[in-house]
Amino acid sequence: MKKAIVILLVMTSIASFAQQSLFGGQEIKSPEINANNSVIFRFVAPNADTVKITGDFLPTEKIKTQWGEFDAPGKANLIKNEKGVWSFTSQVLQPELYSYSFIVDGITTTDPNNPFLVRDVASVTNIFIIGGGQADLYKVKDIPHGTVAKRWYDSPGLGMDRRITIYTPAGYESGNEKYPVLYLLHGAGGDEEAWNTLGRTAQIMDNLISQGKVKPMIVVMPNGNVIQDAAPGEGHDGFYKPQFMVAKTMDGTYEANFMDIIKFVETNYRVKADKANRAVAGLSMGGFHSLHISRYYPNTFDYVGLFSAAILPNQNVSSPVYYDIDKTLKTQMDNGYKLYWIAIGNTDFLYKNVEEYRAKLDKMGMKYIYRESDGGHIWRNWRIYLSEFAPQLFK
Amino acid sequence: MKKAIVILLVMTSIASFAQQSLFGGQEIKSPEINANNSVIFRFVAPNADTVKITGDFLPTEKIKTQWGEFDAPGKANLIKNEKGVWSFTSQVLQPELYSYSFIVDGITTTDPNNPFLVRDVASVTNIFIIGGGQADLYKVKDIPHGTVAKRWYDSPGLGMDRRITIYTPAGYESGNEKYPVLYLLHGAGGDEEAWNTLGRTAQIMDNLISQGKVKPMIVVMPNGNVIQDAAPGEGHDGFYKPQFMVAKTMDGTYEANFMDIIKFVETNYRVKADKANRAVAGLSMGGFHSLHISRYYPNTFDYVGLFSAAILPNQNVSSPVYYDIDKTLKTQMDNGYKLYWIAIGNTDFLYKNVEEYRAKLDKMGMKYIYRESDGGHIWRNWRIYLSEFAPQLFK
Repeated sequence: MKKAIVILLVMTSIASFAQQSLFGGQEIKSPEINANNSVIFRFVAPNADTVKITGDFLPTEKIKTQWGEFDAPGKANLIKNEKGVWSFTSQVLQPELYSYSFIVDGITTTDPNNPFLVRDVASVTNIFIIGGGQADLYKVKDIPHGTVAKRWYDSPGLGMDRRITIYTPAGYESGNEKYPVLYLLHGAGGDEEAWNTLGRTAQIMDNLISQGKVKPMIVVMPNGNVIQDAAPGEGHDGFYKPQFMVAKTMDGTYEANFMDIIKFVETNYRVKADKANRAVAGLSMGGFHSLHISRYYPNTFDYVGLFSAAILPNQNVSSPVYYDIDKTLKTQMDNGYKLYWIAIGNTDFLYKNVEEYRAKLDKMGMKYIYRESDGGHIWRNWRIYLSEFAPQLFK
Repeated sequence: MKKAIVILLVMTSIASFAQQSLFGGQEIKSPEINANNSVIFRFVAPNADTVKITGDFLPTEKIKTQWGEFDAPGKANLIKNEKGVWSFTSQVLQPELYSYSFIVDGITTTDPNNPFLVRDVASVTNIFIIGGGQADLYKVKDIPHGTVAKRWYDSPGLGMDRRITIYTPAGYESGNEKYPVLYLLHGAGGDEEAWNTLGRTAQIMDNLISQGKVKPMIVVMPNGNVIQDAAPGEGHDGFYKPQFMVAKTMDGTYEANFMDIIKFVETNYRVKADKANRAVAGLSMGGFHSLHISRYYPNTFDYVGLFSAAILPNQNVSSPVYYDIDKTLKTQMDNGYKLYWIAIGNTDFLYKNVEEYRAKLDKMGMKYIYRESDGGHIWRNWRIYLSEFAPQLFK
């Protein structure tokens, strides 16, 4: 019997064990974060010719596309030891959540010694956190935790049930209090998973609420791709290779049906259902959606956040949502609001468009707070923006 | 502006695109499920010497360990075409959820064209579903969906808040009805994620409830490793390489503190809080836990499910939970119950132990239903057992 228990413990999945990297009896650790916050990455490949690492902690490289030059994560070479274990030690890294992949003889692969991965569109990369400072907001601490629920809401406008991620703060289930709501929208390629996986929303909110810096609130993370019922793999289309959504993502359909989401939230949760207790914010395409939702329903939100936002619709798009933009912005301004927050990185490819939009608002006399950060169109900035935006809400 | 929108759509994550497998202008599709349910797997590696696939749809291979010989997923060779794309076409596959990895020049890697992965202990493998029959229960259909929440409950006995996965059936939030509860426990190496990822619990329950075969019920999936507050990566230990838990997994601590979980559920959810409306079931180590929880609290559960269960504690373990096992089993029998369901695969390495346990129950006159399936100690069986056990509950 004892033997059986031992076997049980070791063999629950023989497949797992066969795939673990045991090498020369030594367990490989990767990534290994040193005391000084440099990081050692290791990969076992005795017969490989080259092993490289690519990640967002390496100096960026320029890559050329038909649309221009862009920054892409850099690469570095690992060096092989006599046992066939390749390694690379990074520079001392600043606190942050980082992602990386290995490239073995030209083939991009995940780190078999690190089971923590995030999906961004069709790419899956490994992640790790260097703690301290801002990045401590991304960690799970011994504090009260909110609940993250994956639910389905009925969208009569879109003719389907759709999956939605909802964060309720610690204490929500056991109390009677009503809460304000932040609607938090993802970018192109994202879905109802993105803000909570890549964006660390639950950890950021738990930490900031626990520190007394953010008012307890519900955070609603819908899927902004109206042709999807759910994130890839989570809906009725089953498993398929995700692509950037283009169809109907920025044609007004989502904005026109956004009240289905608000109605669902306000009839299913204990919320303060008024303008003073509603915020809408989003990144990139989600910033675009937030801009247009907040002016199309111009007396609905007291708080608006545009994170690295796309601004104006494609000229070929025709939707009542995009008629008379200037007029509805004016109405929104006249109705009043408490915060219109615009943030962008100084190397973002949308920088100039946001600059033009700010000039437009200045000309109209429509007030906003502007936050310019370093860097480009990346999740690092969106996590920072969320952690700066949330403390300003519902005060 | 139009240009910026195009860029936005294409470039939200330049890193993603750089990693996508575009080859010779052709998008690589892998896996590709043919009309006859054979499956083509593809991998781009012009310079590799060998590319193999390993997966649970291939004939198993024997592997030798110090504890004996076991079945492990088999391997097959991919063949390279003139463009450097390797491919393998499987035989016609039966409906099932399958997992696989590639092995490129000896290095195990995930499929870069398939972002759907599951983690089992420290291993991450790709998955796909061949629909039809039993496997249709694992798909997301256009039916009412329950909610899956990741919550944290207070365990005074274990001295910490702990993460728990809770499935509430469609209609729970909008109604006033009280529901019965199934406590569903994972095996060694698992955690509060396992039943819902590898086990497809939400999909199985949604489908069977929608078909009228299962009574709407709440399914509670706790973490059975008492030294963890949460699954690897989801708790206060941050990201670390998971191992099989050995410390305190089967020493009585979990069983002794199980009432913390029941108390949390019965004070936080609209449940029918009586024996007739409680079930406990688990796989492997979770079957062991279910056996001991149900007899240690011998008048608490009317339904007990042991799936490929480990049976008796290690002789060196000392815990009041394991004193007088025969006596508490007798008490449980005398108190009565509606279903004691024992299932195991005919090649499971625990088969003999379960056989001995059945002989013991026979001798005592303790009634049970026995279900023997093909196969071994694998998730395929546990998904089948759940879909056969759930319809028998709360009738």
